[in-house]
Amino acid sequence: MEKLTLVKVGGKIVEEPESLAALLAEFAKIEGHKVLVHGGGRSATAIATQLGIESKMVNGRRITDADMLRVVTMVYGGLVNKNIVAQLQKLGLNALGLTGADLNYMRSDIRPVKDVDYGFVGDPKEVNSGLLANLIAQGVVPVLAPLTHDKQGNLLNTNADTIAGEAAKALAKHFEVTLMYCFEKKGVLSNPDDDDSVIPMVDEQLFKKYVDEGVIAGGMIPKIENSLAAVKAGVKQVIITQASDIAHPCGTTIK
Amino acid sequence: MEKLTLVKVGGKIVEEPESLAALLAEFAKIEGHKVLVHGGGRSATAIATQLGIESKMVNGRRITDADMLRVVTMVYGGLVNKNIVAQLQKLGLNALGLTGADLNYMRSDIRPVKDVDYGFVGDPKEVNSGLLANLIAQGVVPVLAPLTHDKQGNLLNTNADTIAGEAAKALAKHFEVTLMYCFEKKGVLSNPDDDDSVIPMVDEQLFKKYVDEGVIAGGMIPKIENSLAAVKAGVKQVIITQASDIAHPCGTTIK
Repeated sequence: MEKLTLVKVGGKIVEEPESLAALLAEFAKIEGHKVLVHGGGRSATAIATQLGIESKMVNGRRITDADMLRVVTMVYGGLVNKNIVAQLQKLGLNALGLTGADLNYMRSDIRPVKDVDYGFVGDPKEVNSGLLANLIAQGVVPVLAPLTHDKQGNLLNTNADTIAGEAAKALAKHFEVTLMYCFEKKGVLSNPDDDDSVIPMVDEQLFKKYVDEGVIAGGMIPKIENSLAAVKAGVKQVIITQASDIAHPCGTTIK
Repeated sequence: MEKLTLVKVGGKIVEEPESLAALLAEFAKIEGHKVLVHGGGRSATAIATQLGIESKMVNGRRITDADMLRVVTMVYGGLVNKNIVAQLQKLGLNALGLTGADLNYMRSDIRPVKDVDYGFVGDPKEVNSGLLANLIAQGVVPVLAPLTHDKQGNLLNTNADTIAGEAAKALAKHFEVTLMYCFEKKGVLSNPDDDDSVIPMVDEQLFKKYVDEGVIAGGMIPKIENSLAAVKAGVKQVIITQASDIAHPCGTTIK
């Protein structure tokens, strides 16, 4: 199978012209097929504020009412996505910006209301990777915005990490997939005070050991659990690394 | 060659939920391959106003400075385009929203400054229809936003009528193309006071006759000139008709 690298970058990097240009230049250097998944939360919050719409976050997730859905559709699907596409075209990559509604590549269910009503937020249920894989094989570089749809006419706000994981699992049917999460540190650290204490490799066994020892804790636990699940579902490896290192990653490999 | 209908709809119809739903339901009834080109000027003006950005128009065209480019990127490429895509997916059409930067399908030159500096406004120079034609042949329905790019990293605001015409001419290499412009009247009228006085057909000879007689005048002249040029360039016919009639057009056919 041919190699595919799927890179997920958080909001801050893609929202400032200089860091975005640096990231995309590194991204362009990655050999083989490529997919980019981006966030855009800071821009969404900024535009929402300018429009007089308050951003409400619960457990780090955005409450997406009808007004906020219009904002994230504009910002994620338009402003951030299309600027990345235009920049990649300048770099000679044949980019194609997509929401989950485009080509119906990712369908979600609206998140059921339990303690919190998140509004128009979707959890992916179905990935149609056939057309996407054909395009990638023809040299196209998909740029995925953190939006899906319910096939009932509604766009849904969807976490970019989740989109990256689901797209990686589905594309693993067609390619040898490396999923790369850009991180503010060089990788998963064994000592949070020492930026050079990168754990080179984590597998299921080492994960349990590190969690027992308290070396891996907090928000890193679900991140690595999701990565291990992606590997179980066919993704070759997940790499957590610094944005500046994506062309030659030296972060933490999960496999 | 297989048939392809390319429908261009102006702003107002696609910007109000009810008229948009009615239009897309009719669009879905068109037999054969389909492409939709949309505007969105009213929404762009409304969002710009909310963001404190003034809309400046010269000769009916929007002056697009850097701030306004951000607005039209959000509104045309995000809000309007992705909502249409989600609605078409609900109707069972496999829609794919595109700007000219996506798949590099339409490259423009920034308009040179003469009397007026239009800013980030592009005039199409190159249409790459190969990948687009492949997708259409596979059942995909492209939804084209009025944005192109210069392949130097800049998105450019581009007139939707122009995009429709250029896309139609390029796709005429692959399909038997009907280009349809949605119009507020039933078609080109021989008597502006009589809505039923639709001229059924205009060719080059009749066009000259109607212009000489003053039957066709004003803004209709360049519209029909462009349509005749599209036919000369390989488009089978151009139809000017009411939005409600696109599935069974009874307007004016230019060929």
